[in-house]
Amino acid sequence: MEHMDKETFRRVGHELVDWVAEYLDTVDARPVVPRIDPGDILSRLADHAPETPESMNRIMDDFKHVIMPGISHWQHPGWFGYFPANSSPPSILAELLIAGVGAQCMIWQTSPAAAELETVVLDWLRKMLGLPENMTGVIQDGASAATLCALLTAREVATGFKSNLTGITMPLTVYTSVESHSSVEKGAKIAGFGKDHIRLIPTDPEFAMDPVELERAIVRDRKAGMTPACVVATIGTTSSTAVDPIDRIGRICRQYNVRLHVDAAYAGTAAVVPELRHFFKGLEYAHSFVFNPHKWMLTNFDCSAYFVTEPDLLTRTFEIHPEYLKTGLESQVTNYRDWGIPLGRRFRALKLWFVIRSYGVAGIRRMVTEHVHFANTFKRWVADHPSFELMAPVHFSLVCFRFNDGRPESTLNEFNEALLENINEPGDVFLTHTVLGGKYTLRMAIGTWKTEETHVRQAWERIVNCAEASA
Amino acid sequence: MEHMDKETFRRVGHELVDWVAEYLDTVDARPVVPRIDPGDILSRLADHAPETPESMNRIMDDFKHVIMPGISHWQHPGWFGYFPANSSPPSILAELLIAGVGAQCMIWQTSPAAAELETVVLDWLRKMLGLPENMTGVIQDGASAATLCALLTAREVATGFKSNLTGITMPLTVYTSVESHSSVEKGAKIAGFGKDHIRLIPTDPEFAMDPVELERAIVRDRKAGMTPACVVATIGTTSSTAVDPIDRIGRICRQYNVRLHVDAAYAGTAAVVPELRHFFKGLEYAHSFVFNPHKWMLTNFDCSAYFVTEPDLLTRTFEIHPEYLKTGLESQVTNYRDWGIPLGRRFRALKLWFVIRSYGVAGIRRMVTEHVHFANTFKRWVADHPSFELMAPVHFSLVCFRFNDGRPESTLNEFNEALLENINEPGDVFLTHTVLGGKYTLRMAIGTWKTEETHVRQAWERIVNCAEASA
Repeated sequence: MEHMDKETFRRVGHELVDWVAEYLDTVDARPVVPRIDPGDILSRLADHAPETPESMNRIMDDFKHVIMPGISHWQHPGWFGYFPANSSPPSILAELLIAGVGAQCMIWQTSPAAAELETVVLDWLRKMLGLPENMTGVIQDGASAATLCALLTAREVATGFKSNLTGITMPLTVYTSVESHSSVEKGAKIAGFGKDHIRLIPTDPEFAMDPVELERAIVRDRKAGMTPACVVATIGTTSSTAVDPIDRIGRICRQYNVRLHVDAAYAGTAAVVPELRHFFKGLEYAHSFVFNPHKWMLTNFDCSAYFVTEPDLLTRTFEIHPEYLKTGLESQVTNYRDWGIPLGRRFRALKLWFVIRSYGVAGIRRMVTEHVHFANTFKRWVADHPSFELMAPVHFSLVCFRFNDGRPESTLNEFNEALLENINEPGDVFLTHTVLGGKYTLRMAIGTWKTEETHVRQAWERIVNCAEASA
Repeated sequence: MEHMDKETFRRVGHELVDWVAEYLDTVDARPVVPRIDPGDILSRLADHAPETPESMNRIMDDFKHVIMPGISHWQHPGWFGYFPANSSPPSILAELLIAGVGAQCMIWQTSPAAAELETVVLDWLRKMLGLPENMTGVIQDGASAATLCALLTAREVATGFKSNLTGITMPLTVYTSVESHSSVEKGAKIAGFGKDHIRLIPTDPEFAMDPVELERAIVRDRKAGMTPACVVATIGTTSSTAVDPIDRIGRICRQYNVRLHVDAAYAGTAAVVPELRHFFKGLEYAHSFVFNPHKWMLTNFDCSAYFVTEPDLLTRTFEIHPEYLKTGLESQVTNYRDWGIPLGRRFRALKLWFVIRSYGVAGIRRMVTEHVHFANTFKRWVADHPSFELMAPVHFSLVCFRFNDGRPESTLNEFNEALLENINEPGDVFLTHTVLGGKYTLRMAIGTWKTEETHVRQAWERIVNCAEASA
């Protein structure tokens, strides 16, 4: 069977490296998100696979001229939408090695160095973030998977590992704030709790879970014969980066014997900066914690870090023992297949290792500090402007704001929705929205690796100009 | 903030491409699996992240001299263990672009071209495999996730989408053969069916599910007040590539109104060869089908293709509608976030597109034909040898066999276990085992992209020599 020969691989590989280098260097010249309609790209693609081979030149040509015009540029310095999915040169390069080696990391024997590097690098992360010493980490594809793992573990612990055998035979309840991520609802449905058994706890005026309401809900459910199984608290909610009071929530969890999972998917990276660690106060109460290096730690998607205090409860939740995976080494090694949902696993520890070593902890700390500084600068601009208002506290690198020049509240949502469209129209910046307390809110999420103060200033100027033009 | 500059990225990138080229070219000179003990690699790694940046030279040095000696080489032509996780030069190159662009493909707007390419390429695959026309595909990380999706959809359909709301309030049963993959048990536990509600249907002498036993189990459960929700049938089981009789199973499923999911994780690729399509007979009864291009279709991990007949049932199972993800385009586009468990998604369609176009359908067909030919050649050698016996039919590219020179059955398991160790010892070939009908069985799984007939012959010679030496 013929495959691309070594010299061709080298030549094409160099070309592709050069293309990536050029792309990253000039991405700011492209519109952040493409101006295309649904179906535009699809209509330019063949509807059958080619029978015979096509040349790499031709494929790359189509990649550049058909695919790239339809791509949203998450690494664009003007990307302020959603949360960042930031990356970095060392991470991209490590990904090439991961693909090149093509190791499958389901158990220790299928790639011993991958398993051991994962153990080491996750412990690095634990120390870097100042997480409790009794936490052990594992890589997941995303925070949704990690939260599902936490919910499943809680389900098993609450039922003495009976649910795995019999299904859920008693009503188990889950608690999370109204502002928590959609993955909590999704996970609770998947794990069989049922949406009706999720208690969406009200928040305080800063969108953080109200612990008094949490305790009330737990007490009410216990009285009604339910078994409170899990609280999912958030450090840095998706809408506004609100911070649930982990210490107060944790004390309630301990008192009522409910497990506590902390979702810090985006904000977790901030804990590398000691001055920001106060947001993580109370983590010693948590049974698990997740954050995504693929959001704000220079590591390209996917790479989520899930930490648990009792790995044996996690592996008991998931373990399976098919004959074809037995190696006789089970008691001496870590087989990460039992630490999550998938069996197959990529060698993602490698890119974390490349990123952390390339930047050093100091470099990552500097990036976070810079982004938080940018956000606070932007926050000041908003606060100082007579026609804009802040919609939520700025804890990390997200600023929630809207235009409000005093016109009737009933007109503001529509105005701000149109404003967002105008801001994004020219394509040099891209913001997305949320709704806070019924109010349409613009989100300025700072965090791509290429964003500098000048891009933040440019965005602000665009926002002000658009607002003035339509006000 | 300082990042690696463009010229350095190019220089290091070229070096890494060259390293990968050299690695793939000379991987056969390395031992297939490392001869190390648990902890060997770990003990050579720093226990703290470095505070200051380290040079890429130093990191690459450690990668080569600390990590690589502990890696199992899945792309080694002598890799005959488990199932292959094959890759190819175009796939590796595409992975570089995927990482370079760093797009996040959760919804259409977050990368329109990625969503539309996924639609197109999955439809290519459907046609290439001759899957039913009413099937629509989506990429999952692995077959475990796809099977979990199928189980969850079955759970919701069986309960009129009530389980998502209330949890499971009635006993739902799942049927699969005793030879099916461990992901069925894992998925059924996660989805809340409970292991006690999985019926492991006995198999015929060729390790395929016995449809008479299946029907009997369904009838028995219905009589007992259970609701049979899902059958998971397998085309190409992990132990021996047994093929469950999909058409007979499908008719039973239709008769009793039970959903049918078909797991062809490894063997699905074989359907590109028309002469092998008879194994897939009856697929029109299936509600879903999964196969892994990352196993046997030249696409590096992870990339699993999941096909469903009614996408709306899948999306109704998973959909969530947080404000921060609303775009107003929901009715016009495909938002793949609702087609599976994770929210975030990599741009994996790109590597499928690169692979299929680079090889053409003819190239992929040739590879499969070749591997199946190798397996049949190996099968003949086994059959013709007086001291070896075949343990299962050879349908695809896996041969199950053992040494058996007529000595007492009670000694054969131990003998073959020791034999496997001896075969793997020198490190130029690597096989794994299973147990079939209580008998320790060696598995010769052919399917890496670099394996040629000479490697298969070499393995056979090694096997014979080892057997003769210890017999």
